[in-house]
Amino acid sequence: MTAPAGPLVERLAVVGLGLIGGSIASAARRSGAARRVVGHALDDHGRQALALGLVDEVFDSVADAVRGADAVFLAVPVPAMPAVCEAVAAALGETAWVSDCCSTKSSAVAAARAALRADQWDRYVPGHPIAGSEHSGPSAARADLFTGKAWLLSPLTPGQGERAGRIEALLERFGATVSRVSPGEHDAMFAEYSHMPHALVFALCHAVANGPHADRLSALAGAGFKDTSRIGASAPELWTDIIIDNGDEVLASLQRLQASIDLFRERIAGRDRQGLLSLIADASRWRAGL
Amino acid sequence: MTAPAGPLVERLAVVGLGLIGGSIASAARRSGAARRVVGHALDDHGRQALALGLVDEVFDSVADAVRGADAVFLAVPVPAMPAVCEAVAAALGETAWVSDCCSTKSSAVAAARAALRADQWDRYVPGHPIAGSEHSGPSAARADLFTGKAWLLSPLTPGQGERAGRIEALLERFGATVSRVSPGEHDAMFAEYSHMPHALVFALCHAVANGPHADRLSALAGAGFKDTSRIGASAPELWTDIIIDNGDEVLASLQRLQASIDLFRERIAGRDRQGLLSLIADASRWRAGL
Repeated sequence: MTAPAGPLVERLAVVGLGLIGGSIASAARRSGAARRVVGHALDDHGRQALALGLVDEVFDSVADAVRGADAVFLAVPVPAMPAVCEAVAAALGETAWVSDCCSTKSSAVAAARAALRADQWDRYVPGHPIAGSEHSGPSAARADLFTGKAWLLSPLTPGQGERAGRIEALLERFGATVSRVSPGEHDAMFAEYSHMPHALVFALCHAVANGPHADRLSALAGAGFKDTSRIGASAPELWTDIIIDNGDEVLASLQRLQASIDLFRERIAGRDRQGLLSLIADASRWRAGL
Repeated sequence: MTAPAGPLVERLAVVGLGLIGGSIASAARRSGAARRVVGHALDDHGRQALALGLVDEVFDSVADAVRGADAVFLAVPVPAMPAVCEAVAAALGETAWVSDCCSTKSSAVAAARAALRADQWDRYVPGHPIAGSEHSGPSAARADLFTGKAWLLSPLTPGQGERAGRIEALLERFGATVSRVSPGEHDAMFAEYSHMPHALVFALCHAVANGPHADRLSALAGAGFKDTSRIGASAPELWTDIIIDNGDEVLASLQRLQASIDLFRERIAGRDRQGLLSLIADASRWRAGL
């Protein structure tokens, strides 16, 4: 057993205290990686996060939360990034670093680039924790949400690369495994692994809900449908923004999927048992190997 | 606590000892609902089922397993039904009932109708346990596979209806909840709840496996992709047969899905945030309510 490690950050500010931000705050407190964790959130999330013990203190504005912090995580949706980055730019300490958690990186990077001053830009590191849930809000936050999960960082300048090393040490205290990837590569990969599958499952739920057999599904569907459609219950606003924001990559991924669906339909229509079996056997072998 | 109930069946024969047949045999033994459980299976499944304690005895032929049994479950794939029903017809006792477990009912019923004599036909009850797994074979069998699950029966004649009542009592000892439904309605519903989603997930796995980002998926995909694609690892032969056998209903269900996918693609391409949000919000609300 290793001795408890000391704090890596004196004062951590988390902007946005939903599932991801709340879990970052909680992980930082529980792991002792930050001496003090403060935050800011819209609606009732700040009060809830405080009541749940996710943070030590909450502030009414982004600037008040960020001021005096030596490290800042932004855990807000992509559309909120421009305004939040403006507020961060006005209050960020001289040596503090800032990282975001947006599921699409190109737009998040553009928002940060537009708002931050040159010396602040060098202390910004685009990031993305690969952890989530169909649940949302502070009450869904868990200190162990990132344990055993990947966390991607996309530093673009040497200065960002140097901060990425410090952030990596912090994220490892949360139990995450850090990899580095460019923002463009990130967005193409996550269109394929996550954004397109979400769009597809929302479309599946839309079709079945409006189809002729929706009434008895609840009583008769097996675990298969429930697993396949689980992400269909995900937060609508968040996922609409992600899918729209990464629209070109999502459409490219949907186009490749469409070619596969067309091939399956053709072989089912032709009752081409051998042809269909060969597609399904390849798919099944690949999935079993994941 | 209720006193242990006595056996409902003296000698139960199970033909096919994979995931479903093995679980039926095991549930019948563990619950004490059958005094003796015998079986038959192809390949090495009979020996495995015996070694795993799922059955008391296995036989080398369907006829030997069925002879002397007062109840018979057929847990074989649809394409095996014609030959298995022929063998059952030659050996079925004068008062014994027989039920199948096929995931598509119209073809199973046609096979039984063609092979069984008139008096045997009246003792046949089409059935379908709504339980499964992406795993297969006797080693995946579990005595509690049906606990809390639905089991559909599709009796077509008054005689079959009378046997369905006896089978229902047995299935309730396995912990299952029995409903009755016509074979045609069954096949349309399960195209929507299960067969189309399986075809879709196989197509999703096919597209992603052959796409440009397959290499890093294993390290980077979150729980969402894994849940969505879980049924993509299902047994290829079994699912090819089910999808081909219920092809018309699967194609009709895929056609409805296609209309939803087209609508999603159109709104993503047009960056129609409000239009996309309205589709996703409806889908999410519906899925969360399941």
